[in-house]
Amino acid sequence: MQNILFYQSAFTDYLKDYSSPKQPENLYSPIHYILQLGGKRLRPVLTLMTAEIFGTDYQKALDAALSVEVFHNFSLVHDDIMDDAPLRRGQQTVHEKWDLNTGILSGDAMLIMAYQLFENYKPTTFQALAKLFSKTALEVCEGQQYDVDFETRDDVTILEYLKMIEYKTAVLVGAAMKMGAIVAETSEENQNNIYQFGRLLGIAFQLQDDYLDAFGDPETFGKQVGGDIIENKKTYLYLKALEFLNQKDKVKLEQLFSVQLNDNTEKIQTVKQYFIDSKSAEATQEAIKAYTKKAFDVLDTLTISEDKKELLREFGKGLMTRTV
Amino acid sequence: MQNILFYQSAFTDYLKDYSSPKQPENLYSPIHYILQLGGKRLRPVLTLMTAEIFGTDYQKALDAALSVEVFHNFSLVHDDIMDDAPLRRGQQTVHEKWDLNTGILSGDAMLIMAYQLFENYKPTTFQALAKLFSKTALEVCEGQQYDVDFETRDDVTILEYLKMIEYKTAVLVGAAMKMGAIVAETSEENQNNIYQFGRLLGIAFQLQDDYLDAFGDPETFGKQVGGDIIENKKTYLYLKALEFLNQKDKVKLEQLFSVQLNDNTEKIQTVKQYFIDSKSAEATQEAIKAYTKKAFDVLDTLTISEDKKELLREFGKGLMTRTV
Repeated sequence: MQNILFYQSAFTDYLKDYSSPKQPENLYSPIHYILQLGGKRLRPVLTLMTAEIFGTDYQKALDAALSVEVFHNFSLVHDDIMDDAPLRRGQQTVHEKWDLNTGILSGDAMLIMAYQLFENYKPTTFQALAKLFSKTALEVCEGQQYDVDFETRDDVTILEYLKMIEYKTAVLVGAAMKMGAIVAETSEENQNNIYQFGRLLGIAFQLQDDYLDAFGDPETFGKQVGGDIIENKKTYLYLKALEFLNQKDKVKLEQLFSVQLNDNTEKIQTVKQYFIDSKSAEATQEAIKAYTKKAFDVLDTLTISEDKKELLREFGKGLMTRTV
Repeated sequence: MQNILFYQSAFTDYLKDYSSPKQPENLYSPIHYILQLGGKRLRPVLTLMTAEIFGTDYQKALDAALSVEVFHNFSLVHDDIMDDAPLRRGQQTVHEKWDLNTGILSGDAMLIMAYQLFENYKPTTFQALAKLFSKTALEVCEGQQYDVDFETRDDVTILEYLKMIEYKTAVLVGAAMKMGAIVAETSEENQNNIYQFGRLLGIAFQLQDDYLDAFGDPETFGKQVGGDIIENKKTYLYLKALEFLNQKDKVKLEQLFSVQLNDNTEKIQTVKQYFIDSKSAEATQEAIKAYTKKAFDVLDTLTISEDKKELLREFGKGLMTRTV
């Protein structure tokens, strides 16, 4: 086993070789552009790590890892169109740098290319990877649709919200790890358990993202702190606050979340105070801990050595104590 | 073997069962909407027919046929966004009836669902189908990109145009037939030959489409006659005319294709006269015949009975003498 930085750099090297120029240029150069914008490469690293955890050289999992990353970037390109986002990782989004049609078509091509990356595996592995990939990819689409639907609904429940972030974010973390397990040809039980580990960690990760969006340190967070509040996003923090607040404050918070302002400084301050006073911030922290613990409990069911479990625990703890 | 109407109706029944309501509704109802808009179901019928031609019950090919149709409709949904088309088969397009984001996301889901339809085949068949599908789907994207690129280029060659329609239209006809051959587990030689037959017929089909767009009977054609001329599309007719015309008329035709008019009656009439006088219309008819003949020549290489070859010939002739 190697450390995370090793897998990150092995993956980045592999990605570089993948990005050779192809024709028509207007289809492929946006793909290379978005793939080299960077990012933590969290998902592909998990695929490589999981393959080694189950006793297979990470190099055998490079194509599966790349598929996960290509799919993730496909979803970013299309989501950025849907969210009308001008920037991604501090750079222009594809539909901004080129145009809407380029964003749609290059995204489509990436989704297909993600499937092609399974082609070098033998037929049974190919089928297992592609089936998991399709199921996951469709859930990500469903999660995105729920997210869009929630914008215009005022009766979203905590359970619905959790299902949405599970689909939109967490299942791909689970699938990234299960792909490493499939390539390693470990038992189906191990495959399913590592998927659950990733899925639960993915939910904790997204809740942590919600929390940092409101309470992160502006110096280290990277994104604009309070972005979800400005956009009136019905996050876990918000939904829990509605649950905990008395009728009068509940109405006030709902009112705050029904307007779009030019200057948001005061709104952000007031809403954050509601999150704290209602103990919704505390409840969110507890939920993050609870999902992380659930994930760690799954580790006990895996038939791998203790030091490998410890590595996964370290990785999970690293995610949960992050400030970025 | 059955006749085409039989396969059409078997396919339509199967499609009906596929369209059960799923959640989230805003993701899946546009998919059901576009799939039930109708159309000739040409591609899936070819998949079913080819399976039986190579000795397998068409029912085994229903999932592959459905995959081809779901993919074809995915490409229509995304192309209609890119072309800003308000109508498809006389009904509202998805992005018009819903919105842009619904069109993008429902299209993405359809592309994934097309892959899922291979999952019931055994691993080797699954891999063969999915590989062919990915290669074809990516070529369709490339063809669409070339089509977009050609809009702003004035040096498109006949060869480039033929490659574009091959990718955008013909390869999917070839793939639809090859999928039937793969399901039937016929020899690789038969698989490749039937692919060539479909591909060549697909090129003839698209050239015929170009021809009918200018010279079709407005009573029977369905689409607006002269649509390509109005949009200044660099079709085979146009490119051949540029090749054949003298310098003076060439400049005139290029000028006509550099403007967007409100009333196109005269423009259409003048351009059609150029197509006729330059003998570009004739050359297009000859190209259609030549590609059809090439396709029929491939039939001789297939190890199937003479009456099955005759059926494929009838199908090809039917396509080429169509007026719609």
